[in-house]
Amino acid sequence: MKIIIAKNAGFCFGVQRAIDMINDLPNKYPDKKIYLFREIIHNSQEVKRLQEKGMHIIYDLNKIENDSIVVVSTHGITPDELEILKKRKIILVDTTCPYVKKIHNIAEYLSSNNYDILIIGDKHHLEVRGIIGYCHGRSKVASSFSEIKNMKLGNKIGIIAQTTQNIDNYKKIIFNIIDKLFIKTKQMEIRIFNTICDATYNRQKETIKIAKKSDVVIIIGGRNSANTKRLYELSKNILKSVYLIKNASEIKKRWFTNKKIIGISAGASTPHWIIQDVIKKIKELNV
Amino acid sequence: MKIIIAKNAGFCFGVQRAIDMINDLPNKYPDKKIYLFREIIHNSQEVKRLQEKGMHIIYDLNKIENDSIVVVSTHGITPDELEILKKRKIILVDTTCPYVKKIHNIAEYLSSNNYDILIIGDKHHLEVRGIIGYCHGRSKVASSFSEIKNMKLGNKIGIIAQTTQNIDNYKKIIFNIIDKLFIKTKQMEIRIFNTICDATYNRQKETIKIAKKSDVVIIIGGRNSANTKRLYELSKNILKSVYLIKNASEIKKRWFTNKKIIGISAGASTPHWIIQDVIKKIKELNV
Repeated sequence: MKIIIAKNAGFCFGVQRAIDMINDLPNKYPDKKIYLFREIIHNSQEVKRLQEKGMHIIYDLNKIENDSIVVVSTHGITPDELEILKKRKIILVDTTCPYVKKIHNIAEYLSSNNYDILIIGDKHHLEVRGIIGYCHGRSKVASSFSEIKNMKLGNKIGIIAQTTQNIDNYKKIIFNIIDKLFIKTKQMEIRIFNTICDATYNRQKETIKIAKKSDVVIIIGGRNSANTKRLYELSKNILKSVYLIKNASEIKKRWFTNKKIIGISAGASTPHWIIQDVIKKIKELNV
Repeated sequence: MKIIIAKNAGFCFGVQRAIDMINDLPNKYPDKKIYLFREIIHNSQEVKRLQEKGMHIIYDLNKIENDSIVVVSTHGITPDELEILKKRKIILVDTTCPYVKKIHNIAEYLSSNNYDILIIGDKHHLEVRGIIGYCHGRSKVASSFSEIKNMKLGNKIGIIAQTTQNIDNYKKIIFNIIDKLFIKTKQMEIRIFNTICDATYNRQKETIKIAKKSDVVIIIGGRNSANTKRLYELSKNILKSVYLIKNASEIKKRWFTNKKIIGISAGASTPHWIIQDVIKKIKELNV
């Protein structure tokens, strides 16, 4: 029996990095209160685990006590919020995803060079709210071209996307901007940045590759998770023996009878420890 | 009888500016030899007129005599050629179109900031050869996406167009670049500049507007000129009495019988003096 695990299975790079940064804080600082400023990641199982380790979720910076540890979430915060935290007598742990930080840098650069900045994404999302802060009043947010076509924009435009933006939607909006706005304005400049994180795309691509080499595929993740179900469907297109499980307890020994190669992938919201539990359980089956 | 003349008729801004810059040179410097470095504009009638005024077309900078006047054409030259001329003991008259000069500045800026530069245009055209010089080895020229798709490009790309590039072709190529290249490369940046001159587009738009107000329309230009014929067709879509003439000698008095408003437009290669001749002739008809 051989087990192939997708390298891109489960948590994306940014989320894994954040968990690695904070996991050991309770041991390292047993006497300090640890605050998670907003939910560190969008995964309730994992957030619950962190709360059980003694971390506190907080939404109001004014309620933070001195001499505490404050963890900034992967989605990032605004420069104003960062400024408030830097002035406080606290230990700041900034888990902002480096790909989001890169967008902050682009936004800062574009705004200081007098570009109007179009953010393609969800204006209520934490990540976008952070990015808006770095645009210093020069940003507009839209998730479709219909929201853009009547905007007043200068002739220097920078376009950036929320990291989780759908790539086809982003392309469609860019095409419309070029078709309807760019051509009308002589000497106009449009600067487009591909700030979309390719974790989801890569995870799907790798899962397909593994499914092609496997006799049975196990997808780990929530049945209500859209990206997990997609991994299941993509694998099911390739072979019959594909199973979607939430955790190790759902594994059935009979799935592995006469199977030599077992492929494993997991949705973006599946923590590493749940994947490891599954691998351990399969190995214990000793099929 | 009222005559309406299209403001955008005939020579574009850049060509007219060049002619204005050099027209009086033979009177101002009667003792100096005047060289036109390559054909100043692409219009043989006008070039012939300038030659008759004593100007000499030259293609080899080494053949220029000292103490002469050298006129750089509207299409612009490379920085190396400019350097050679600046070192010579001559009077330099640079008629490079300001819209082309703007592209030179963009190319210079992009190349010094490590962008790979895509020039959409005709690589053999004088304008493009000048622009290539300002890219300092970082440029690639293409007139269709098929020439681009296998190019090795970095993840910072600047895109510029020859001023006379067809806008729909430019859009099509940009769409393909975004669709096929941009999305594949994480953190890629594409900077697109609308460097297309809108003289042709504006001339057509204004001609249509004038045709709608006129009882008869006269289009002046060569019968082999594509942009002139297009003005004729566009007017013909609006009214029946439209005539395409090369110069004043072709005018017929009967065209103007019972016509109150006469609209006049001209192709991009038609000099101002030919248009003026036509207007004079129509006024003399006294219809």
